[in-house]
Amino acid sequence: MAPSIYPDYPPDLSEEQRQFLVTSVNDWSIAHGLAVRPAPSFLNQNLGISGHDVTENASQVLAIAAPLTIFPSLFPRACFEEALAIQKAYNELYAAIAQDEEWLEGIVEELIGIDDFVGKLWETHLAVKKEGYVQEHSLGLFRSDYMVHVDPQESGAKPEIKQVEFNTIASSFGGLSSQVSSLHSYLASVDAYPSAAASLQPESNKDGIVTQSPLPASKSVPSLSSGLAAAHQAYGPSKSLRPTCILFVVQDPERNVFDQRHLEYSLIQKTGIRSFRLPFQRILTDTKLDSDRNLLYHPPHSPSKSYEVSAIYFRAGYSPDDYPRAEDWQARLHLERSRAIKCPSILTHLAGCKKVQQILATPHSPHLSRFLPDEAMAARVLKTFAPIYPLDQSDAGQEARKLATDPSTAARYVLKPQREGGGNNVYRKAIPDFLKKLPESHWPAHILMEMIEPPAQRNIILRNGEIQSGGVICELGVYGTCLWKNGGVAGKGEILHNEEAGYLLRTKGDQSEEGGVAAGFGAVDSCCLVDV
Amino acid sequence: MAPSIYPDYPPDLSEEQRQFLVTSVNDWSIAHGLAVRPAPSFLNQNLGISGHDVTENASQVLAIAAPLTIFPSLFPRACFEEALAIQKAYNELYAAIAQDEEWLEGIVEELIGIDDFVGKLWETHLAVKKEGYVQEHSLGLFRSDYMVHVDPQESGAKPEIKQVEFNTIASSFGGLSSQVSSLHSYLASVDAYPSAAASLQPESNKDGIVTQSPLPASKSVPSLSSGLAAAHQAYGPSKSLRPTCILFVVQDPERNVFDQRHLEYSLIQKTGIRSFRLPFQRILTDTKLDSDRNLLYHPPHSPSKSYEVSAIYFRAGYSPDDYPRAEDWQARLHLERSRAIKCPSILTHLAGCKKVQQILATPHSPHLSRFLPDEAMAARVLKTFAPIYPLDQSDAGQEARKLATDPSTAARYVLKPQREGGGNNVYRKAIPDFLKKLPESHWPAHILMEMIEPPAQRNIILRNGEIQSGGVICELGVYGTCLWKNGGVAGKGEILHNEEAGYLLRTKGDQSEEGGVAAGFGAVDSCCLVDV
Repeated sequence: MAPSIYPDYPPDLSEEQRQFLVTSVNDWSIAHGLAVRPAPSFLNQNLGISGHDVTENASQVLAIAAPLTIFPSLFPRACFEEALAIQKAYNELYAAIAQDEEWLEGIVEELIGIDDFVGKLWETHLAVKKEGYVQEHSLGLFRSDYMVHVDPQESGAKPEIKQVEFNTIASSFGGLSSQVSSLHSYLASVDAYPSAAASLQPESNKDGIVTQSPLPASKSVPSLSSGLAAAHQAYGPSKSLRPTCILFVVQDPERNVFDQRHLEYSLIQKTGIRSFRLPFQRILTDTKLDSDRNLLYHPPHSPSKSYEVSAIYFRAGYSPDDYPRAEDWQARLHLERSRAIKCPSILTHLAGCKKVQQILATPHSPHLSRFLPDEAMAARVLKTFAPIYPLDQSDAGQEARKLATDPSTAARYVLKPQREGGGNNVYRKAIPDFLKKLPESHWPAHILMEMIEPPAQRNIILRNGEIQSGGVICELGVYGTCLWKNGGVAGKGEILHNEEAGYLLRTKGDQSEEGGVAAGFGAVDSCCLVDV
Repeated sequence: MAPSIYPDYPPDLSEEQRQFLVTSVNDWSIAHGLAVRPAPSFLNQNLGISGHDVTENASQVLAIAAPLTIFPSLFPRACFEEALAIQKAYNELYAAIAQDEEWLEGIVEELIGIDDFVGKLWETHLAVKKEGYVQEHSLGLFRSDYMVHVDPQESGAKPEIKQVEFNTIASSFGGLSSQVSSLHSYLASVDAYPSAAASLQPESNKDGIVTQSPLPASKSVPSLSSGLAAAHQAYGPSKSLRPTCILFVVQDPERNVFDQRHLEYSLIQKTGIRSFRLPFQRILTDTKLDSDRNLLYHPPHSPSKSYEVSAIYFRAGYSPDDYPRAEDWQARLHLERSRAIKCPSILTHLAGCKKVQQILATPHSPHLSRFLPDEAMAARVLKTFAPIYPLDQSDAGQEARKLATDPSTAARYVLKPQREGGGNNVYRKAIPDFLKKLPESHWPAHILMEMIEPPAQRNIILRNGEIQSGGVICELGVYGTCLWKNGGVAGKGEILHNEEAGYLLRTKGDQSEEGGVAAGFGAVDSCCLVDV
């Protein structure tokens, strides 16, 4: 954590101001679907409907405002604009990586035997490859996550963005982030914020015309649904003479269901494209492949009808927890074999391994320029990398092992597992002890990353109807949509659609060192841009 | 209840179809704010947040889909169109009544001493009259409620609409009715309804072009907020050099808060007009009159700021329950004295007495043509009246007393109290016993109305996450917005704005003889129009 670079913010609240803001936020959020299903722990087992014991039903019908910040957090304008400006280059980079099977194979080989999940994904890919892929298009709905970093060793250092991770599967909160930026703008427009919050005021020229708003809207809902629509259109007409649809492959139950539903509603409203939610466990029950490997969806609620699936949007399947049974891997194989466009394909999923990020961000790595030939753009992307080291037997790995096992140097680092999903990071001084207990053969399943030092700031988080004030850490996620036709090696494919697709700010208390709103540790937020 | 005149509807549902529809409805409703705060009885006292006993908080932060029907109910197209077509005439009628103080005085005199509430309202009006009104504009956001009636004694009788009541204060559900018609259209557009539901299919011409949709959208949200905006504009610039705002005077707590919030959000979004929610009990604390009787609002959350109130929208104050203390009547007087435009003024509030409806609907009454000079329109309005009798000493009253005390004739009638708010009607054979126990001096506080016999139909109601199927009764409410400049006697005023403002369908199980979704007995619904 670096010292603050921001103006004094947010203003103090009287009890009446606090009450007014909380009520305004609670009501606006439900009125606009900025909501989640409540946690079962919130609804204890004594909650009954008409005298029955129906907690499960209650947690599926009740809703509550998503965990969110009362104020939009401060964010340096230049950093925000840079993050959005380079998203198309990031899309291009990861589309190229996902097409370079040989290069990915080298990475996977290092992880196989350590990370079962990566091994299983690779096996699944190989099985389809052997038979031959029948779909040459791939869709990515990506999210590149950053924190603002201020070098604590350089006085007067300018803030810059440093990448935390790049998500190639199930990038979440795009459905809610449009709503939270609207919420904060609404609160500003009705003077719900104390007038002391000067940072929230738009800049005007001498004629009183607003020239610059500090509150950028997030276009993530329409942009992400446009990405799905692009894949649907690229798929072309049904070959089986059925109506076509998109499948959202989801977890069940899903507390964050409205985040996903907003994309579904935007899709049907703007493009007329049908989509269905398919729980991961029901893939094999509800879908079939015909002899041309068209994926046919048979909705349980409408047995006489069937649909040909144009695109599969994975909001599940990103974590080993989604594959408890052998059938679950059969299900993933089944989808990968199909002619539907995958969002993402298995190679695209694997491109999101932290190992890939680590290889790109290892100092003096030759890989970035290989995948991103535009030198100026590659330089801007490179600037967003925080140094990342492998924990393997390479020279960089040996260096990293020294840094990680020495408590005095470990204090500037975080140790992260290669596989997806938060909750398992090890921070700073805890790293040496953690490694001591871990067999050395398992060390390469982790990477060592220099801690990003975000400037101190404060905010108020509303969660489960209760507020907490204090220091916070913000993570900016920039969405990108990219549709490409696979080439055999990097650069040979053709990009058909490439867009920056809005942003998300996620904010957590600075006492916690874990991220992830879904895991209950963070809140959705939007940016209040400041020139610093 | 008349026999059904409708096609077979809705189609039977398999367990999978039912499940799919319920999930779709629960998710769409929360994503679009078609919601209420859950009833405290739903959240029992054992519900805790972080171990605290916070049921009150929980019931203010949790939400649940509003009670609603899974299918749009069938409604005769001709009846629907007629109800909308005559709304502007109804607006004109009630604007004229509200301006005829002398005529209203005659009615009030009959009720005073029987109905304390009417007496108190009248006293309040007289007090302001003595001092002199300083605002000549009045706004009505009205709702005229109808049921379809099929004469059970005439075979092959055409369905017609009969008025149940006319609401001049706090007409509710306009904020949700736009949403419920959107919900049903969404479900039809994604084939969530079984294909057997032929009534839901749009009609097409021979070229396949849709010529007529069976699912009319309700424009109530934008229309009602436009009505409020018209009053705001008519008020003109602030005289006290403050920013202006509209006040929503509300009950607190309010489970139906989203219904009201949707109007507030539409108002700020479309017109930029600020509005605030003011609990009825806080009127005297948070507002002041200056020497010109400008109404000044001092928001508790922003003590340094104050606003001049252009219009007061009452969503509270319609029932004696809102006036437990003497200060509550002082508060109503305080608002009535102010220069703000009232929605409604006390005279407009009184124009909504059931006694007024009864006098207009007493067979051969001369009053309708007096207030509504357009003969053709008056004839169409007259056709919507079900015969209504006073229970007083007049000739019609004597006749009514005979009908009401004889169990064989009472079976075709309903007895209603003159004052507002559901829950106290006495039906059919229960009427003679009820009157036997009531002192005869109190009889004139009620009116006797011929029962409307709606055609039988079925639907599925979702409430608190549980569904109930069965016979239902539907009530169509048509909203109207009307702004006028008061004249001294009927017809002399000037109407500045007069619009039909969308519709609401409210549906209840036919086992219950009580109405009112707020009271927990009904559900919001929309129309599936049929030609019968």
